[in-house]
Amino acid sequence: MGFVTYDDRRLCGQLHGKRFQVTYRLQGDLDSARALAEAVCREQTVEFPLEAIPPGIILDRVVGQLESLQPANDGGYLACISYAEEIAAGEFTQLLNVLFGNISIMPGIRVEAVELTPALLSMVRGPRFGTDGLRARLGISRRPPVFTALKPMGLSAHELADLAEAFVESGVDIIKDDHGLTDQVFAPFDERVRRCAEAVAEANIRTGRRAMYVPNITGPAEQMFERALRAKQWGAGGVMVAPGLTSLDAMRALAENDELALPVFSHPAFIGSYAVNPQGISFPVLFGTLMRMAGADAVIFPNYGGRFSLSREQCLGIAEAGRSPLGTLKTVFPSPAGGMQLENIGEIVSSYGPDVLVLIGGGLFTCGSDVRRNCKRFVTAVEQAYDVWERKNAAQKSAAEGA
Amino acid sequence: MGFVTYDDRRLCGQLHGKRFQVTYRLQGDLDSARALAEAVCREQTVEFPLEAIPPGIILDRVVGQLESLQPANDGGYLACISYAEEIAAGEFTQLLNVLFGNISIMPGIRVEAVELTPALLSMVRGPRFGTDGLRARLGISRRPPVFTALKPMGLSAHELADLAEAFVESGVDIIKDDHGLTDQVFAPFDERVRRCAEAVAEANIRTGRRAMYVPNITGPAEQMFERALRAKQWGAGGVMVAPGLTSLDAMRALAENDELALPVFSHPAFIGSYAVNPQGISFPVLFGTLMRMAGADAVIFPNYGGRFSLSREQCLGIAEAGRSPLGTLKTVFPSPAGGMQLENIGEIVSSYGPDVLVLIGGGLFTCGSDVRRNCKRFVTAVEQAYDVWERKNAAQKSAAEGA
Repeated sequence: MGFVTYDDRRLCGQLHGKRFQVTYRLQGDLDSARALAEAVCREQTVEFPLEAIPPGIILDRVVGQLESLQPANDGGYLACISYAEEIAAGEFTQLLNVLFGNISIMPGIRVEAVELTPALLSMVRGPRFGTDGLRARLGISRRPPVFTALKPMGLSAHELADLAEAFVESGVDIIKDDHGLTDQVFAPFDERVRRCAEAVAEANIRTGRRAMYVPNITGPAEQMFERALRAKQWGAGGVMVAPGLTSLDAMRALAENDELALPVFSHPAFIGSYAVNPQGISFPVLFGTLMRMAGADAVIFPNYGGRFSLSREQCLGIAEAGRSPLGTLKTVFPSPAGGMQLENIGEIVSSYGPDVLVLIGGGLFTCGSDVRRNCKRFVTAVEQAYDVWERKNAAQKSAAEGA
Repeated sequence: MGFVTYDDRRLCGQLHGKRFQVTYRLQGDLDSARALAEAVCREQTVEFPLEAIPPGIILDRVVGQLESLQPANDGGYLACISYAEEIAAGEFTQLLNVLFGNISIMPGIRVEAVELTPALLSMVRGPRFGTDGLRARLGISRRPPVFTALKPMGLSAHELADLAEAFVESGVDIIKDDHGLTDQVFAPFDERVRRCAEAVAEANIRTGRRAMYVPNITGPAEQMFERALRAKQWGAGGVMVAPGLTSLDAMRALAENDELALPVFSHPAFIGSYAVNPQGISFPVLFGTLMRMAGADAVIFPNYGGRFSLSREQCLGIAEAGRSPLGTLKTVFPSPAGGMQLENIGEIVSSYGPDVLVLIGGGLFTCGSDVRRNCKRFVTAVEQAYDVWERKNAAQKSAAEGA
């Protein structure tokens, strides 16, 4: 056995004892879950045979520690593992690496919950605007904002701008690019963003509204930030980015940049595999906690009952993780989407409450022959759903006060 | 029904008819596979109800086209879907988005193969050095290079540099940081990289060798490129990055940067979920084709028979995708790893051939009490395995010529 040697006292002075905790769901029976939990403790930290490390603080504190191992309600085991705060190095990328780096290649492991320390939470800024800040920018104090997308791919910048104008004039609050629009020859980034931002601005002036255009700035690493800045110059009210394509950390960097300082909308493209599979990261941790730490003011995700496969519980878990206390981080607007129709609006508002961006895209083109009229029905349906929610909420409040 | 309108002739002039193909494995019976394939065609392109698009070129060419649907050998169906080259916009991020963006959230879909057009392949540079270029830098013409890692986490920069020195003096060719080493207080990035690069350089001078130090530069988006440049200044021979944490496209940007111009080693941390799950992207496409397009000169992945779960076929598929013809892109060194021991070396060289980086990390500390001696055994075992491979290869050649 060859031994690695190190100065135990030096390292002891560098680790201050604060630990963060991650709960993993592990497949298998108790013995195999315990073996897997112990593998996680090693794999995510020293990645080294423990028997080759002399007794001391690396084994005691640097290696992950299995705090508890309990049967999960729906099969397998829940292992709570703690890690020394210092191994995350104050970096969001390295925190993700400790959570799920090497073990992303091991079957049977899923990140179910994280409990971070104040220091780790303060290493990111989180949403710059949050729910309240986005409401202030939109001038909407209580009801859910009404949200749609410019598509289909193949339209020219001019044709997309015409659509944007119709959306604003019909009462839509937020108009984003479809996430597939980047810099195609048929609607190049610069022309599209300039034209659409201009169309929204002009329609806002005509109608006295404060609708927001949110272009998709997902693109080559060398260009993305510049695209965002140009979009801002041209009058974009926010930017959309797909962190599955650009990395969560690139979204964080964008959101934290004081020169940009625009609301950030996250799109789920290319990141779904982590959450839809048995092995990976739970929907609430990925789309709630991690997207929030990565600075999303609004998180678009596939709603239950649409074209995708999430359960109601998973979706509400995302919304909850975006608004429950998390250090000093602001709250996030959930934006359930993916095949939503006018008839889903009541359910959306009643489930998520008023702090939700109600996003209908293609559905606005299949519910009647006049898109402007469909948009107006959309707006009315959101207002009505909000009224229903408010009456119910008031009734519950007065019942609670009377009790 | 509301109709979107567009100028068919304008778009017709913008699409030139070249298409690329993606083969998806779809779960389910024929009917559900067909429905899923049609959903993929829509979802990855227009994301819009087809009935709301007037007849014309968007339906004919922008929407993905199902070219074939055939039963797969091991269950489910293989759907070959073609997409217009122009929708990828000449961007690697958007190409990934078309391959697997929105459908990353749909169960039952796996990218099995891609066949790109020359224009799409030429939009990336790929490996700057490739197998031959890395060999030239190492001064190793034929045998597999010998590769190890600095760990465990918790050692100081000084302690890691001592290890690096021992590795070079014992004949190891490439010494990388463990992927968990970023900028921790116990071994800060700048100090670690400076000390380790210096230790390797000095040991090279003493021994007349050309060993290469490859620091892990994975880190915050704002800092990563600067870290890489500083590492180069201090004498690093390459850089390692985990594209699961930083994005494949950030690795591409790094690899394509002419100011950096160092070999790039990719690490699989945080990207495994795509490949280990039934839904996702196959190992050869992800770790072979996409990592190669993203500029990796060497791709580290978990070998079969180690701590992870890949099959021999999956691993050899990665190596094959890294060296088979792909536009004008250079070939990639596969680096199978993850719990390899001295006794695995024969199998590794016989399976992958000599163009492989043989990576043993912690295993060098469990096969005898003297790490330097273990390293020498490692080097000898690689040389012997290469001799065996060469003799076998020569025998096969002469048998083939005699036949």
